[in-house]
Formats: sequence, structure tokens, C-alpha cells
Amino acid sequence: MIGILGGGQLGRMLALAAARLGMRSHIYCPDPDSPAFEVTPHKTVAAYDDEAALAAFADAVDVITYEFENVPAATAEFLAARKPLRPGANALAISQDRLAEKAFLAAKNIPVAPYRAVTSTAELDTAIAELGLPAVLKTTRLGYDGKGQRIIRQPDEAAAAFDALSPKPLVLEAFVPFDKEISVVVARNVAGEVRAFDPAENVHRHHILFTSTVPGDIPPGIAKHAAMLAKVIVVALDYVGVLGVEFFVVPGTERPSLLVNEIAPRVHNSGHWTEAVCLTDQFEQHIRAVLGWPLGDTTRMADVVMENLIGDEVLSIPAALTGATQPHLYGKSEARPGRKMAHINRITAKT
Amino acid sequence: MIGILGGGQLGRMLALAAARLGMRSHIYCPDPDSPAFEVTPHKTVAAYDDEAALAAFADAVDVITYEFENVPAATAEFLAARKPLRPGANALAISQDRLAEKAFLAAKNIPVAPYRAVTSTAELDTAIAELGLPAVLKTTRLGYDGKGQRIIRQPDEAAAAFDALSPKPLVLEAFVPFDKEISVVVARNVAGEVRAFDPAENVHRHHILFTSTVPGDIPPGIAKHAAMLAKVIVVALDYVGVLGVEFFVVPGTERPSLLVNEIAPRVHNSGHWTEAVCLTDQFEQHIRAVLGWPLGDTTRMADVVMENLIGDEVLSIPAALTGATQPHLYGKSEARPGRKMAHINRITAKT
Repeated sequence: MIGILGGGQLGRMLALAAARLGMRSHIYCPDPDSPAFEVTPHKTVAAYDDEAALAAFADAVDVITYEFENVPAATAEFLAARKPLRPGANALAISQDRLAEKAFLAAKNIPVAPYRAVTSTAELDTAIAELGLPAVLKTTRLGYDGKGQRIIRQPDEAAAAFDALSPKPLVLEAFVPFDKEISVVVARNVAGEVRAFDPAENVHRHHILFTSTVPGDIPPGIAKHAAMLAKVIVVALDYVGVLGVEFFVVPGTERPSLLVNEIAPRVHNSGHWTEAVCLTDQFEQHIRAVLGWPLGDTTRMADVVMENLIGDEVLSIPAALTGATQPHLYGKSEARPGRKMAHINRITAKT
Repeated sequence: MIGILGGGQLGRMLALAAARLGMRSHIYCPDPDSPAFEVTPHKTVAAYDDEAALAAFADAVDVITYEFENVPAATAEFLAARKPLRPGANALAISQDRLAEKAFLAAKNIPVAPYRAVTSTAELDTAIAELGLPAVLKTTRLGYDGKGQRIIRQPDEAAAAFDALSPKPLVLEAFVPFDKEISVVVARNVAGEVRAFDPAENVHRHHILFTSTVPGDIPPGIAKHAAMLAKVIVVALDYVGVLGVEFFVVPGTERPSLLVNEIAPRVHNSGHWTEAVCLTDQFEQHIRAVLGWPLGDTTRMADVVMENLIGDEVLSIPAALTGATQPHLYGKSEARPGRKMAHINRITAKT
């Protein structure tokens, strides 16, 4: 029995992958309308700080994982004291704090954009003086899909940006004129085995992932370097499970280079293409790792473009399912604007 | 909400495919320990002739399908009067009666082995005189995995074979010296669209499917002819869903020919390879058809050998999961001898 914190589409897809491996899943989520509750009879509807519910959940399962990086630290510690928590509390602590994440990466010589911690407008002024403008001011916690950040183009925008963002502290990042975003989904298991999927080229729309294309238009040297950096990160974290790494490809005078934008200690939206065309997909890979099993072969059998369907776009299904398409719908009851409802993989022969 | 009769591995894999399409599944099965109960919170544990339970089940779902051809006719009629039953009662009636199936196929000019209906030892003697020996005496109903049949090699074995088999009536089939068994999984949807997967070459062990290999060692003309015959069958049945067709490849003086051994109105063990290497697998294809959706693309991306793991063989997992393998475990609580516990797809580059 695998315990999964979080009942959204990622938890749901993890539970489906666990079922294919003969496992049962127990979903823990405060939202009684969670889509993952529809794929297993075992659930807990409770807050993440409900210690009685957490203790009963831990008793009911053999190993615990999660679908989102914002599991509260106290929750992670409480559970990790009772059952194996994979990935571990350390990966959570680092990835849910943008400042801790950048410090960790920089300490391992992983390239990140220049940044400064900002706890006051005075520190923000100093940071702007050091990094220049434009720059991006971000919350260190709870940011996602473009939320929790402001671009500062002129010095007189700084105070308003500082006031607008919460929770504090913040981090100022130098604005990087990148060519494109790519990502690598990488896995490491209990035995220390490490495997990466092919890198994807990602396009966003309204700050939400729109498409992931594999193979992307990525120089081979950059693709190899991205995979290597992703592997360095999971080894440095002593990580167990699947991790998503987002990179910026930055043009250079001689050749482009890579910066890590952020890491996510979980299966990743930009890895949904793996389900359609890889021998092992990211969900099965995560479950294999969490179970202490050998990792699966990540070979890609075809080329693919994954497209997210947001809000009403899901209504294009089933009519849009012509040609070489593989859909995955999340079973959400209401197609609210901006809500990820489904994705479609469009598949073509391998180039 | 899709209602599924039967809670074994096929029902489980159908429910998992339905979940990927955003659907909910309600499993109906008399066995409280059914593996399909672990992949949905919606279940009914009741006998197939429990009309109150069947009525409540029909009320709870939008469309009904099944994982096995031995759904009692009265159950099928009861449900079909309340909600769409796909495939329909006609396909069930034909495929659960070996004699009706052969008569149907013969009437559509689909080649089958010579056969005679046998309701008495006198009829058996006449049938033996007409078809010759060896021949195979089979029950018309409830036979599977080699159960419910006897080979008769000498006339003096006839009476004992007749007495041993039940339920009556029986059918005597001429013994066909076939080269190999192949099978085609074919689908037809509500709109009448028809698509077949590539034929598989099947090897049995102890009368249970052991491996399905795709591509098999099958002459191209035979492969095309098998797909065509499978398509003719689903059109003739006005069928909605996935159907498995087993063929014997019979050597001939000029070229080999095909006989239909049997048809199964459901997803088929010899189609489990599709999950690993096809754009759409047989489970999703069945759900698409049952929902009235467009059929999916059946393109195969790689070569594959599917191997069933029977009884204790499942204990080879996870250690056996090295190389290009994709496992599927059924989550059965007890590995009894002869019980299908899992399968592994072994994948190689497309030839």
C-alpha cells in the first residue's frame, strides 16, 4: 500500500501507475472532491496538520510519497518518523524554498541565475544595484504557474513590487534573456541507480505549461549537459523518486549555456509525454523508485508533442481524438478557467 | 460512470483505461476479493442473478460492459433493458455457445474446422464416422484454458469422453493439424468505425497462454487475411467494443490457410502487448468504443513479446525487471497455481 499526499492529477496518475505494478494506493487530501479519489477505494480527507489523521494514514500504508512540493515541513517530519517518506524531507525542504534551492544548487556548482535574498526594501535596492534591471522579484515559497513574482524594469517599481508580494522573504533574480525553456525528468532509486528521460522543449501560455515537445530543438551538447546536471542534482540530494528540472537555454557568443530555473521533487507536467511513447513512463518510474525496485528503461519509441488542455479546452475531447493522439483526462468535475483538465500527446514516427 | 461486470484482471485493466479517459468505473462482481475493486471506490458485491443489485448497478452507471463472455443471458437482458450494454447481448449469446458461434461464423463464410453437434453417444458415433479421428469433443459452454474438452484418438474412447464432459450438449470438431495459433484484437465503435491491431503469434503452455509475439512469424498475406476476417466478424455482429479472434494457421500444399478457433467478446489476453507499444492499447480502445468515442490509432511503435506470469512466477518481479521490460501486475492477493498473476512485455526496436 503506497500512501500518496495530494489528490490532484499527479496523485491520480501515480495511483494508476501503482495499480499497474499490482500495488494499492491510499490518497490523503483535504479536498473531498479530489480527482485521485476516483481511482482507489482507500482515502483520507483531512488537513495536512491533522496529526490523528496523519498517524492513521501512516499506519495504513507501507511507504509514503507525494504529488506536490508544498507538503508542510512538520507534516513531512511527522510522517517520515513513522514510514519511509520518498523523496525525503530534505528534498522537500530545499525545493519548497526558492532561496534554499538556489543556495543548494550554487553550492553544488549547478549554474543558476544570479540572485539575492531580499527581506527589506533597502536590501532590494542593494540587490538591484548589484544585479541590474530588469530583474524578477519572487516569493521564496508557494509560487507556481507565474504566481508570486513581479518583473521590475525601472528602479521606481521596486517598492510596489516588494509590497505586493507575500509571503516574505523574497528573492531577486537577474533577468536572464533565455532562448527557450527545456526540462529533464530524472529518477533515482533506493539502490542509487539514476536514469533520465530525453529533455523536453517547453512552451508556456499565460504562465502555464502549454506544450512539451520531444525531441525539442536543442543542440545535442546542451541535451546531454542537461541530463548530466539533472543526474548530479538527484545524487547530491541522495534522492529517491522522480524529479523535474527546468532549465533556461541562454544564448552565448560561442555556444548556448544552461541555467537551472527550478527543481520539483515529484513527477512533472513536462514529463507527461513519457506515458505515450516511453518503455517506462515517469509515473511508473517514480513508483518503481519509491518501492525500491529497479528503474525502468526510459527509451523513447516515437516523437511527441504533449499539449495541456486548460479549462474549457477539455471540451474538444472526444472530437479532437483523431489521428495519432493519446489523451489523458483527469476526471475533474468542473472545468474552471486556468484549471489543468487533461493533456493530449500527439505522436509521430521517431526522427 | 462505466459499469463493468467482472472484477478480474481484465475488468481491472478496463477500469484503469477508463480512468485515463477521465471516466469513473463501477465494478460488479460476486467475489469480494476481486482485484478490480482496488482501482475504483465504486463496487457491487452480488451474484449475477441478484436483480435488486443489478437494478441498482444499472441506475448508478451510464453504460455497461463486461470482462468475460459467460455473463448469463438473463443478466445481459435485464441490464440491456436499463442501460446500453456494449458489446450487446447478441455477441454474448453467440460467443458463450461454441455451437452457436460456429454456426454464426460458418453462415458468414468465415472458415472454421468441420464440426458436428453431439447430444448423445449415437450422434457422437455418427459424427466420428463423418469427421474421422482424431477429433476433439468439447462442451459448447463454459470451456476455457483447455477445460471442457477431450481428444478422441480411437473409437473406443468416445463413450468415456462423452460421459466425462458436462454440461451437455457437446460439439465434435475435426482435429486440425495446425502450424500455429495467431490472434487478432479488433474494435468497432458506435459509428461503425473498425480497427484491428497487428496479429500476434501465440504459444500456450499447459493449455494457458504463455507468450504472444508481435510481429509473429506469419506470412504477410495470412496476417492481412486474419485482420480482414476479424473485421468481417465485428461488422457481421453489429459489434461495439473490442473482440479477440483466435485463428489456427493450417499448412497447405500451396499456401497456408486460416481457421477461426474461437472469438471472445472482450479484451483478450493475447492483446496485452498493445499496452506497451501501441499508440492506443486494447483497453483504451474498448472504452473508447463503449463510450461512443472515435477509435484510437493502433500503430505499433516497437516489437514485443508478452509473457504471462502464472502462479509463483510473479515472484520473479521485481528482480526480473531489467532491460527493456514493461510489467503489469494484477494485484491478486494469492498466487495460486495456474492463476494468471501478471504479464511482462519485453520490447525490442521495430524490425
